[in-house]
Amino acid sequence: MTAPELLVISQHADRYRELIGAAEPALPLAAATDPARAASIGGGARIVLGEPALVARALPSLPNVAWVQSTWAGVEPLLAPALRRDYVLTNARGVFGGLMTEYVFTYLLGHERRVFEHDAAQRKGVWRHEPAGTLRGRTIGLLGVGSIGSALARTAKHFGMRVRGYTRRSEGSADVDAWFHGGEKAAFAAGLDYLVAILPGTPATRHIVDAELLAALPPHALFVNPGRGSLVDEAALLDALRAGRLAAAVLDVFEREPLPSEHPFWRMPNVRVTSHTAALSAPEDIAALFLDNYRRFARGEPLKYRVDFELGY
Amino acid sequence: MTAPELLVISQHADRYRELIGAAEPALPLAAATDPARAASIGGGARIVLGEPALVARALPSLPNVAWVQSTWAGVEPLLAPALRRDYVLTNARGVFGGLMTEYVFTYLLGHERRVFEHDAAQRKGVWRHEPAGTLRGRTIGLLGVGSIGSALARTAKHFGMRVRGYTRRSEGSADVDAWFHGGEKAAFAAGLDYLVAILPGTPATRHIVDAELLAALPPHALFVNPGRGSLVDEAALLDALRAGRLAAAVLDVFEREPLPSEHPFWRMPNVRVTSHTAALSAPEDIAALFLDNYRRFARGEPLKYRVDFELGY
Repeated sequence: MTAPELLVISQHADRYRELIGAAEPALPLAAATDPARAASIGGGARIVLGEPALVARALPSLPNVAWVQSTWAGVEPLLAPALRRDYVLTNARGVFGGLMTEYVFTYLLGHERRVFEHDAAQRKGVWRHEPAGTLRGRTIGLLGVGSIGSALARTAKHFGMRVRGYTRRSEGSADVDAWFHGGEKAAFAAGLDYLVAILPGTPATRHIVDAELLAALPPHALFVNPGRGSLVDEAALLDALRAGRLAAAVLDVFEREPLPSEHPFWRMPNVRVTSHTAALSAPEDIAALFLDNYRRFARGEPLKYRVDFELGY
Repeated sequence: MTAPELLVISQHADRYRELIGAAEPALPLAAATDPARAASIGGGARIVLGEPALVARALPSLPNVAWVQSTWAGVEPLLAPALRRDYVLTNARGVFGGLMTEYVFTYLLGHERRVFEHDAAQRKGVWRHEPAGTLRGRTIGLLGVGSIGSALARTAKHFGMRVRGYTRRSEGSADVDAWFHGGEKAAFAAGLDYLVAILPGTPATRHIVDAELLAALPPHALFVNPGRGSLVDEAALLDALRAGRLAAAVLDVFEREPLPSEHPFWRMPNVRVTSHTAALSAPEDIAALFLDNYRRFARGEPLKYRVDFELGY
């Protein structure tokens, strides 16, 4: 048997073996869900595909690795200072925009249409004939405007909304009406109806949603975080929600996951916990993205979606 | 005091008086919420603006009426055989597409993203980390493709869906991928993920959603009715839902409204009752539409949105 060139370390190991084996039958491949098992069967591989948390555990036992393709957008586990950085790291991009958009608009629309109030009324048998709100004319603020933010901006425009974008420097979406950068956080937040955090989790973005930003939001604002738990100062968010300085929060990600059972978020009527489901990678999408990059790798061309270890994205 | 030229008979009488008075101060206007009171103060008016059910009650006492502008899309009360038809009837169109679209996509997205399952899990403190569904690639069937159906088709395309349209004859939307007419109801329904009924309520559309149509849907299909209660054979729908031949129904309108408290729909876990709130007319939108038509009327031009009493729309 040929020594594996590709090692898959993923909870979807079997599915990736199937998808990649069908597309590239000549590529010697080993796959496992467990990092230790993976290292023992494919320790010599030059290419690794997998979840960053699993790959990080196997990495010290993979001396030949030249390229790691992450199945996720977020690669924090691979940025730990103790880990090697002598390989090319690429992440998953461009495949989450659609799912993230569906997630965010599910809850924006649900908020305006009062779906949970209608549900409660139905349980009581009450004909709740009250007008709904609308997205039209509302202002959404996007904290981060990469490929996901651009997809959100496009859908916001489709629904007739105004769109603000907050980024470090870039202004990469034609659907954003007003750009804010650096120290303009409070100006960005003032008057927003909805704030959505979709920045990558890096040292620079840690707790970017802090007491100052939250205080600048109007009290009727809804905050949605499908991005990274580290973006939010959870104590400040808790304070703002309890004090009514913010209408509600829809949280998919947390500083600690699973969210600890004693955390007050679970029991707050103005908080929705969605358990890190906003945009789960579909192996079909990730396999296609990997195969595209693999063909570049095989031809010696630059890879797409390369991560800068210093920036963290 | 000049005799009123315009009589408003509406639950929003005061708001219409304000909006129309500001835009057309020279137009003599009377307004009331009660039909009898309206007839007594403005019985000589040539123009009437109001809710069809209220206008229908005043109509016999309005000898001079030449034009009635309905504040609703549906004008069934004015189609009663006993009522006069010697005037021009116009309805409200083009203002409901946005709200109807937000309503339908709230519940389509909510169904895919399992918002009520997440809500139930949160109440129990359960981290529900399970993949969501997506609209991308799904097929939506629009029973009726006028201005509302066209708006729905546009949003469906935005989310990457396939769109089927069922109409009497017309094929008026470029966002519909496949058209069905007349006897092609079962072919239209076969394989749909979502069925949305937005036809007008007329004798020809009564119970168009019947046992045959429901039987042609796949068992995983979701039915949404923001249109008219009369479109649905409720007994057949109840049977299909109880037998699991249909996954769920989101119902805004009913054969009897408010939905009687003893009706089983209230207590079925796979039925959502939203109490006729999908697209409530906003007086601002309707006043703008009325004023546009009023200027045509004053110039002797043909009015927009004229209803054919025979067709019922």
